[in-house]
Amino acid sequence: TVNGPRLWQSLMDLAEIGAYDDERTGLRGVNRPALTDADAAGRRQVIAWMEQAGLTVRIDRMGNIYGRREGTDPTAAPVLTGSHIDSVATAGAFDGCLGVLGGIEVVRTLDERGIGTRRPIEIGVFTEEEGVRFGTDMLGSAVAAGRLSLEYAHALTDRDGRTLGGELTRTGFHGPADVRLEPPYAYVECHIEQGPALAENDVQVGVVTGVQGISWQEITIHGRAAHAGTTPTHLRADAGLAAARIGVHLRSMVDSGAYGELRATVGHLAVQPDLTNIVPARAELTVDLRNPDDARMARAEEDLAAFLRTLEDGTPGLTLTTRRMARTAYVPFDERVQKVIAQAADDHGLAHISLLSGAGHDAQEIAVLCPTAMVFVRGEYDGISHNPREYSTPEACAHGVDVLATTLLRLATQ
Amino acid sequence: TVNGPRLWQSLMDLAEIGAYDDERTGLRGVNRPALTDADAAGRRQVIAWMEQAGLTVRIDRMGNIYGRREGTDPTAAPVLTGSHIDSVATAGAFDGCLGVLGGIEVVRTLDERGIGTRRPIEIGVFTEEEGVRFGTDMLGSAVAAGRLSLEYAHALTDRDGRTLGGELTRTGFHGPADVRLEPPYAYVECHIEQGPALAENDVQVGVVTGVQGISWQEITIHGRAAHAGTTPTHLRADAGLAAARIGVHLRSMVDSGAYGELRATVGHLAVQPDLTNIVPARAELTVDLRNPDDARMARAEEDLAAFLRTLEDGTPGLTLTTRRMARTAYVPFDERVQKVIAQAADDHGLAHISLLSGAGHDAQEIAVLCPTAMVFVRGEYDGISHNPREYSTPEACAHGVDVLATTLLRLATQ
Ligand SMILES: NC(=O)NCCC(=O)O
Ligand SMILES: NC(=O)NCCC(=O)O
Repeated sequence: TVNGPRLWQSLMDLAEIGAYDDERTGLRGVNRPALTDADAAGRRQVIAWMEQAGLTVRIDRMGNIYGRREGTDPTAAPVLTGSHIDSVATAGAFDGCLGVLGGIEVVRTLDERGIGTRRPIEIGVFTEEEGVRFGTDMLGSAVAAGRLSLEYAHALTDRDGRTLGGELTRTGFHGPADVRLEPPYAYVECHIEQGPALAENDVQVGVVTGVQGISWQEITIHGRAAHAGTTPTHLRADAGLAAARIGVHLRSMVDSGAYGELRATVGHLAVQPDLTNIVPARAELTVDLRNPDDARMARAEEDLAAFLRTLEDGTPGLTLTTRRMARTAYVPFDERVQKVIAQAADDHGLAHISLLSGAGHDAQEIAVLCPTAMVFVRGEYDGISHNPREYSTPEACAHGVDVLATTLLRLATQ
Repeated sequence: TVNGPRLWQSLMDLAEIGAYDDERTGLRGVNRPALTDADAAGRRQVIAWMEQAGLTVRIDRMGNIYGRREGTDPTAAPVLTGSHIDSVATAGAFDGCLGVLGGIEVVRTLDERGIGTRRPIEIGVFTEEEGVRFGTDMLGSAVAAGRLSLEYAHALTDRDGRTLGGELTRTGFHGPADVRLEPPYAYVECHIEQGPALAENDVQVGVVTGVQGISWQEITIHGRAAHAGTTPTHLRADAGLAAARIGVHLRSMVDSGAYGELRATVGHLAVQPDLTNIVPARAELTVDLRNPDDARMARAEEDLAAFLRTLEDGTPGLTLTTRRMARTAYVPFDERVQKVIAQAADDHGLAHISLLSGAGHDAQEIAVLCPTAMVFVRGEYDGISHNPREYSTPEACAHGVDVLATTLLRLATQ
C-alpha cells in the first residue's frame, strides 16, 4: 500500500495553486484552466515532485509532460499512467490531479521498497483535458494519440483570442519532444468517479469499462436588436428567445427517453447587447451531449439540427450557425486490463463494481495506442464534480492509488 | 417652420459623440450610456449649444440640465420641453436627442424671428432615461417629479458597482440646483415613435395619448454547478435551464392572448460559471413587461411570480429571487395639450394620428406636475429603435419640430 497521508498532502498542496474562495458556498475551490499562469505554476510543482522522485522528465510540443522511471529491460515498452492537472473555473482538488499525483506516489512507494520493474513506468500529464479554455476536451492526449493534429490544436483560441500555441510558448511549455506517443504496453488512469454510482453501491473502487460518447458544439444565433417596449411581437427576431428554446427543447429530448441515456447541458450562454430593454440581437451557447450509445447520439444530433432549422424557418431575420468543438464516440476499455484492476482491488480487500464513465478522460484517447482501462475513486455528495464541493476522503484516494500501484506493478513486470 | 438642415446637422454632430461602427451591419451607431465619458462629452456639447442660443443653464443634483429662455411675464410658470441624450449601447442618432436638439432649434428659430413669449420656455435634458446603465428608466425625470427619491437614485449601481452618485461627481454633473421641479405650465416632448404605426398609417406625425405600463425586474437563480457528463439529469439544479424556461414561458404568455397586448422581453441573460461542461450554478436575467392595461399587467406579473414558484418547487436545490428595477403604470396624457399638438399639425398641413407610446418617456414622469403630451416623429424600417438602423428622415424630423415649435409658442403665449 502507498503512503496515503503523503498522497493527500500533495493533493492539498497542488490545490493551493490557483485556489479561490467561493463566495456563495464559503468553500475553497480551484481555478486553474489550461496554460494559464496558475496551470503553469502547477506544472512546475509537478515537475519538481517528479524530479525529486528521480523521474526523467520530457515535455512535448503540446505541452504534455512525461516523467519516466526506467525498467530493467531497455527494449520493453513502458506502462503509462497519468491524467491532467488543468481544471475548470469552479473545480475541486481531485479531478485529474489524483491520477497524476497518484502516479508519483506509486513511484515513491516503489523506490522506498526498492522494487524494480522489467518495463519502465511513465506518468503523463496531458494538456487541456477539460476543454473549457480552448474548446476541445482531451486535447493533449488526442494529439499524442494522433486523433487530432498538432496544427489544429495550436490554432485553437480562447475567448480572448489567444492561441493555444502562443500560450504554450508564453508559459514555457512548448517542449522539444515528439508529440506522437510511441505505443506504451498499457495505460491505466486513476480518477475520481465524478458521479454517484460508487457511493450508491457502497463500494470504494470502480473498474471502468469505457467512456460514453461526447458531442460539443457552439451555436451562434443572429437576430435583430429592437426596442422592448415598441416592437410588436410578430416583428421580433429574438436571438435570446431562440437560445432559450434550444435549452428547453434539449431537456425535453432527454426527458422523452427517445435517445436512451442522453444527457444534455447548455453550459455557456451569452446574449448581446445584453440590456434590459433591447431584444437580443445575438446569442451564443454551447451544447454538450453525452450518450453511451453511438446510434442514439447521432440521432440526437440530427434531431437537434432539425430543431435548429425549424427555429430559423419559423422566424424571419433569425439565422443559426453551428461550430463543432469536440466529438468522441463510445470508447470501450480493454477487458484484460480491467481484469488486472479488479484482481488488484480484490488483493487489497476492496469491494468494487464495473461501470461506464460519464466524463471524458485522457484514457479514451490513449486507448487507440494500447490496452487501456481506468480505476475510479468514490466521491462524496453524489460525486459532485466541477464544483468546489467535489470531495473524496483521504481513505478513498489512498485505496484507489493502492489499486493503481498493484495494477501498474503487475503490468510492468509482464 | 424651423431650420430643418440646421436641426439635422446638430443631430449628426451629437451622434458622433459616442459613435461606434457596428461590425455586423456596417452601420455607424451610438453607444453613450448615462454618465459615461461619452455622455459627459455629449452633455458639454448640448450645454455649449444652449449657451450659444442665449439660454441660461442650470444643473440639478440628479445631473438634469435645464436651459431657460425668459418670457415677458416674470411671474408666469414656464412651458417645458426636452428629453434625454443618454443612449443604449446599440443606439441610433434620434432617440431622445431629437427632443433636446429640437427644443434648441425652436429657440434658435424664435430668436431669429424676434418672437418673444409671455411664459419662459425651458429645455430639460434628463439623466438616465434609458435605464440600461443603472437599472431604472426615466430616472432623472422621476426624481425631478418627486416619484423616486434622490437617495434611491444616487445609490443605484452599474454592473461594475459604480454608483450613480459617484458618476455624477466624477463627470462633473452633480449640479447645485434643487432637483424637485417647480410645476411648469405644460410639458411637451418631441420624440421618434420607435415603432411602426405612423409608417403603417402613412402619416408624418403622431399625437401621443399616453404611455403603457412598464415592469422591469431582475431574476437571480441559484442552482448547483455540476459535471455535464456524469451528473444524472434528476440530480441537476440547472440555473441556466430555469432561465431558459422563463424566457420560453414569457413568450407563451404573450402568445396566449390572456394578457391583452402584453409584450415581454428577456434582454439580459448571463450564466455562471459559463463553461461548456458545467451545469450552470447561477443565472441572472431581466424581464421587461409592457402593457397598456394596468389590470392585465398586474395579472401577468402575478402569473409570472407563480411560474417562478413552480420552477423552484419542481427542482430541489434551485432558488429564485427577484428584484424590482422599475415599475410604472399606464399614464394618460392631457387632452387639452393633445388638442394643441393636433391643431399645430393641422396648421402645418401634416396628417396625423393619435397613438399610445410603447416606450417609456420622461414625459410620463413630468405628467404628474403639469398638463403633458408628446409629438411622435415617424421612423423608417418598421420604426426600429435601440439599433444602429434607427432612422428618421430629415424631413420627418423637421416636421416634428415644426409641430413642437407651434405647440410651444401657443402654450407659452397663454
Ligand atoms: N474528467 C473530466 O472532467 N473531463 C473533462 C471532459 C468532460 O467534460 O467530460
Ligand atoms: N424611449 C425609450 O427608449 N425609453 C427607454 C425606456 C424604455 O425602455 O421604454
